[in-house]
Amino acid sequence: MKYGIIGAGAIGGFYGARLAHSGQEVHFLLHSDYQFIKEHGLQVDSCDGSFHLDHVNAYQHPENMPKCDVVIVGLKTTNNRLLPELLPPLLHEHTVVVLIQNGIGVEADVQQMFPDVPLIAGLAFICSAKTEPGRVNHQCYGSINFGNYSCRDQARFEAIINDFKAAGIQVGEVPYETARWKKAVWNMPFNGMTVALNTQTNLLLRNPATRQLIQGQMMEVINAARHLGVTGIDASFADLMIKMTDEMTPYSPSMKLDYDFHRPMEIHYLYTRPIEIARAAGFDMPKLSMLEAELRFLSEK
Amino acid sequence: MKYGIIGAGAIGGFYGARLAHSGQEVHFLLHSDYQFIKEHGLQVDSCDGSFHLDHVNAYQHPENMPKCDVVIVGLKTTNNRLLPELLPPLLHEHTVVVLIQNGIGVEADVQQMFPDVPLIAGLAFICSAKTEPGRVNHQCYGSINFGNYSCRDQARFEAIINDFKAAGIQVGEVPYETARWKKAVWNMPFNGMTVALNTQTNLLLRNPATRQLIQGQMMEVINAARHLGVTGIDASFADLMIKMTDEMTPYSPSMKLDYDFHRPMEIHYLYTRPIEIARAAGFDMPKLSMLEAELRFLSEK
Repeated sequence: MKYGIIGAGAIGGFYGARLAHSGQEVHFLLHSDYQFIKEHGLQVDSCDGSFHLDHVNAYQHPENMPKCDVVIVGLKTTNNRLLPELLPPLLHEHTVVVLIQNGIGVEADVQQMFPDVPLIAGLAFICSAKTEPGRVNHQCYGSINFGNYSCRDQARFEAIINDFKAAGIQVGEVPYETARWKKAVWNMPFNGMTVALNTQTNLLLRNPATRQLIQGQMMEVINAARHLGVTGIDASFADLMIKMTDEMTPYSPSMKLDYDFHRPMEIHYLYTRPIEIARAAGFDMPKLSMLEAELRFLSEK
Repeated sequence: MKYGIIGAGAIGGFYGARLAHSGQEVHFLLHSDYQFIKEHGLQVDSCDGSFHLDHVNAYQHPENMPKCDVVIVGLKTTNNRLLPELLPPLLHEHTVVVLIQNGIGVEADVQQMFPDVPLIAGLAFICSAKTEPGRVNHQCYGSINFGNYSCRDQARFEAIINDFKAAGIQVGEVPYETARWKKAVWNMPFNGMTVALNTQTNLLLRNPATRQLIQGQMMEVINAARHLGVTGIDASFADLMIKMTDEMTPYSPSMKLDYDFHRPMEIHYLYTRPIEIARAAGFDMPKLSMLEAELRFLSEK
């Protein structure tokens, strides 16, 4: 299968490079790194073994790219307004689009833009960053869970999973809604709170007051999901996420990096949409609504 | 009546100086400003007319002070642990203590320290600051509401009110519980939020997200008070407080000044106690609990 990568940063760059390194045909749409990667290739510094792609199929404009069987979108959701421009040149009649993005409501909105395109959600559990042009630093973890949103071709879905496995990536298949809400249990407290208090995950958990607050925010997500009829997430999952974060090295989530580097924050899909979806079903998330307001304030400061 | 002032800063210094200026006998317990005020007197720069007290009854140690008929406590509540040491030398059998302090639960705790002392709460509505040694800057407002907590001698209570009136201070008498909770409607949102977001009142109200958040936090206080059976505060009071703050000059509440100048914040009486009191009665204040946790984190940072 031909793969296309839109948004070749910490996420798209990493998974795209792994697929290419395993022998898949991968085409990268690049922006600021185009010239550098065209000349020097792509370096992945990885806890699982570093490697360098000497030759990269690099493009500056989507019109120059071939039609792809699978397009992986690794953009920040704050750039999803660009998809109607970037995506169509890569699509043929059966192209599957994999959205490896943060938040809740992303697939619903992209599906509205492209009603007939089969969508798969990719939920990456990875610490990685694009540290300089043409260089992705993969610090730890790296597994990805796929949730099938609207791909009726089960064989194609499994073929993608197998390609990722063949690239040495740990892959799981999960029910879409459960996967999205499970990810929100970690994402909603830690992304915003590290920004609001200008700190890292470990310090939030070391202070008893914020540790309890994080736990309370996680329970808001879990109870919202339960209220929406999403199964498979109970209170013990909050304990598990906190224990896991205790064991992580001090970490700045993606929103904290966005804030620190004066990039737009993914407030809409990480907070506004899930809070709206829960509220429409009659469930209030007061602490996370407050965090959303604090983030809106800080983003405009 | 002989007046004693403990905590002669922005509040105690202002009201004590006004009483002295009107001819009352006022004795000031001073700490860092003792030497300066002993030598140079006390200057009040005031929107209502500035004045200077050339001679001040200044003391460094409470043991050297005379017994007083009324003791005004203008300490920050973070220093209330000093009261068992500072207050007794000033007390005779009928001394009334007026606590002009922030928060909820203050009188209950001071009464536990001094079970037989009649207490009055003074709720100051004032913008003032001690800007340098021996100088209080009174920017605007200045009225004070008295709530009788445990003073059975109504004649004494009224005599104090009349002395304040004679000093040109606008005075009201209010039911104790209602007054404390009314003040919390403004204090709890604005004190903490200006710290949490490192900002001022006007910017919090200018941003639609935080304006709505402030309103929501005010409603938590109003609903907690209602749940506790405190009468006389309804939703329209939140609107009134927001309207009033819209009309104020950009303002940093006392907790913001404490934070900026690395002084301890009054988290306990402004947040922990009212939240505990409401929770014990079965009412949760999720947004203000979150704010409390953020403040605890920031205070230890």
